[in-house]
Amino acid sequence: MKAITLAEYGGPEQMAWEEVADPAPAAGEVVIDVVASAVNRADLLQVQGNYPVPPGASEILGLECSGRISALGEGVTSWKVGDEVCALLAGGGYAQKVAVPAQQLLPIPDGVSLADAGGLPEVACTVWSNVFMEGRLAAGETFLVQGGSSGIGTHAIQVATAFGARVAATAGHPDRLRFCRELGADIVIDYHDDVAEELKKATDGRGADVILDNMGAKGLANNLSALARDGRLMIIGMQGGVKAELNIGALLAKRGHISAMGLRGRPVEGPHSKADIVAGVREHVWPLFAAGTVRPVVFERYSMADAADAHRRLADGGVVGKLLLLNPDA
Amino acid sequence: MKAITLAEYGGPEQMAWEEVADPAPAAGEVVIDVVASAVNRADLLQVQGNYPVPPGASEILGLECSGRISALGEGVTSWKVGDEVCALLAGGGYAQKVAVPAQQLLPIPDGVSLADAGGLPEVACTVWSNVFMEGRLAAGETFLVQGGSSGIGTHAIQVATAFGARVAATAGHPDRLRFCRELGADIVIDYHDDVAEELKKATDGRGADVILDNMGAKGLANNLSALARDGRLMIIGMQGGVKAELNIGALLAKRGHISAMGLRGRPVEGPHSKADIVAGVREHVWPLFAAGTVRPVVFERYSMADAADAHRRLADGGVVGKLLLLNPDA
Repeated sequence: MKAITLAEYGGPEQMAWEEVADPAPAAGEVVIDVVASAVNRADLLQVQGNYPVPPGASEILGLECSGRISALGEGVTSWKVGDEVCALLAGGGYAQKVAVPAQQLLPIPDGVSLADAGGLPEVACTVWSNVFMEGRLAAGETFLVQGGSSGIGTHAIQVATAFGARVAATAGHPDRLRFCRELGADIVIDYHDDVAEELKKATDGRGADVILDNMGAKGLANNLSALARDGRLMIIGMQGGVKAELNIGALLAKRGHISAMGLRGRPVEGPHSKADIVAGVREHVWPLFAAGTVRPVVFERYSMADAADAHRRLADGGVVGKLLLLNPDA
Repeated sequence: MKAITLAEYGGPEQMAWEEVADPAPAAGEVVIDVVASAVNRADLLQVQGNYPVPPGASEILGLECSGRISALGEGVTSWKVGDEVCALLAGGGYAQKVAVPAQQLLPIPDGVSLADAGGLPEVACTVWSNVFMEGRLAAGETFLVQGGSSGIGTHAIQVATAFGARVAATAGHPDRLRFCRELGADIVIDYHDDVAEELKKATDGRGADVILDNMGAKGLANNLSALARDGRLMIIGMQGGVKAELNIGALLAKRGHISAMGLRGRPVEGPHSKADIVAGVREHVWPLFAAGTVRPVVFERYSMADAADAHRRLADGGVVGKLLLLNPDA
């Protein structure tokens, strides 16, 4: 098969579309003939050498894909060869074939094309695990998503709206703020403004019960200020740095919670596992696609051979939703 | 009635045992004729003027008590005059009578004296809400309690042990470390040592699934280091300061959680309420007293008129368990 390989750590120029060995399914795994993968910000960090691959995972880039099952490992009974699926991956998606534990598979949601589904597992599992499983966002609560026009953001706005939350979203451009509103956001805030201040104005001073943040250090103080009593700040990215001063007194005054969680290093099964998250997505989020309440937001489609161009595009900023990578031979 | 009054903010010398107006029960409240209250560290901060009284709460010190119900407000049907109870208070415990919402009452656990029960509500509600409700400590997990010989610590060790956790406790003196072990701690660590390092040695490098911390800023970095994957750091005090650098990258690498929660400002009913916590304590913790698995740990008993001495004693350090304040006329 062909896959994107890295000559060495660096920038997109290190990426090449080359012949590599096919993966074989271990016990409990399936092999997917990939139709589409998608670009995640973590992939850019991995190319730079700033996102170590978890032990046992493929060295090939790519945290999600869609395609058709072409082989079953020992003991897999819940899926069959030929099934159309999408999957949360620990790596290996930028390739024509990938092996993945069966627990990380999802059917293609009704109403979504096989290719577009390749950009859903990361956003759906990230939002479900952070905002709903851990963050316990409830109907009637206020949800603030930082970076509302990102892949994660565009999905989070739709799902939180569908679950009856009042959604606030930030973005850096009027067009993208307008798009957040079209997706369901009640409140949109330019992130060049004081987000906490603007959110409080829009919520009678109350703030957000759950915040989904991709900035890390840079956003910490403002996010704590934007947090409501008993609020939950979920940090999923550190685009604004790693270390920041935490005012524990301010956190205690709000009975606040801060979580920082990723998907990639989780165990396949058991407590805090990918299996639990994937099952939750299938049960609670997938029906929203069938109902037409939630839809994939795809910004551009690239041939997987041109993945480097897609990386450059994401790094340039202004991408709304996901960048898909299509297997040119699928 | 008599109560401890504060001439002005300052130290224990501001406290006097004086005649004040009796409280009257509002709708949904009862009046308790107090037998015992107990000293909490928050009381010392309140005397200093560093713990503002929540709106609507009594200005009188005292976050818990035990005694007998002497009057019922409108609509209270679940308790009757003469019932022996203990109660979580928003204030008012250092007095001969206190009015409290009925949802904050607990029966006296079987096997516990009426006076000793006056020192249970704060520790029981703090440990239940932090370690179990929010921290979700599970059987087989490792629980680290900082300050294992404190009132909170001595209760937390016993309850976590009873629920099947492996308990690690810190203290600053060999006698107190020994006492933590007698209460059930498997691992005891002198807090003058590198606690994270010692805990990792004792847990094959794994660390603690839940940490209950009373130090705040000073302990933050070491607590994050001591935290296991998917671990929950519950901060309930800031004896070591308010502001500290948070390494969000370190938190993310562990999929970690930080919560900082108090009891006093919570609503009586509804989400995140005192009613929910008190009900959980009654259902899950109170039977452990009846079974003899958990017992009150009382260090010294003072006449409530001498509450200032008890405050000085707590500030001096080395108190193991609770300091009770007994109504001299009860």
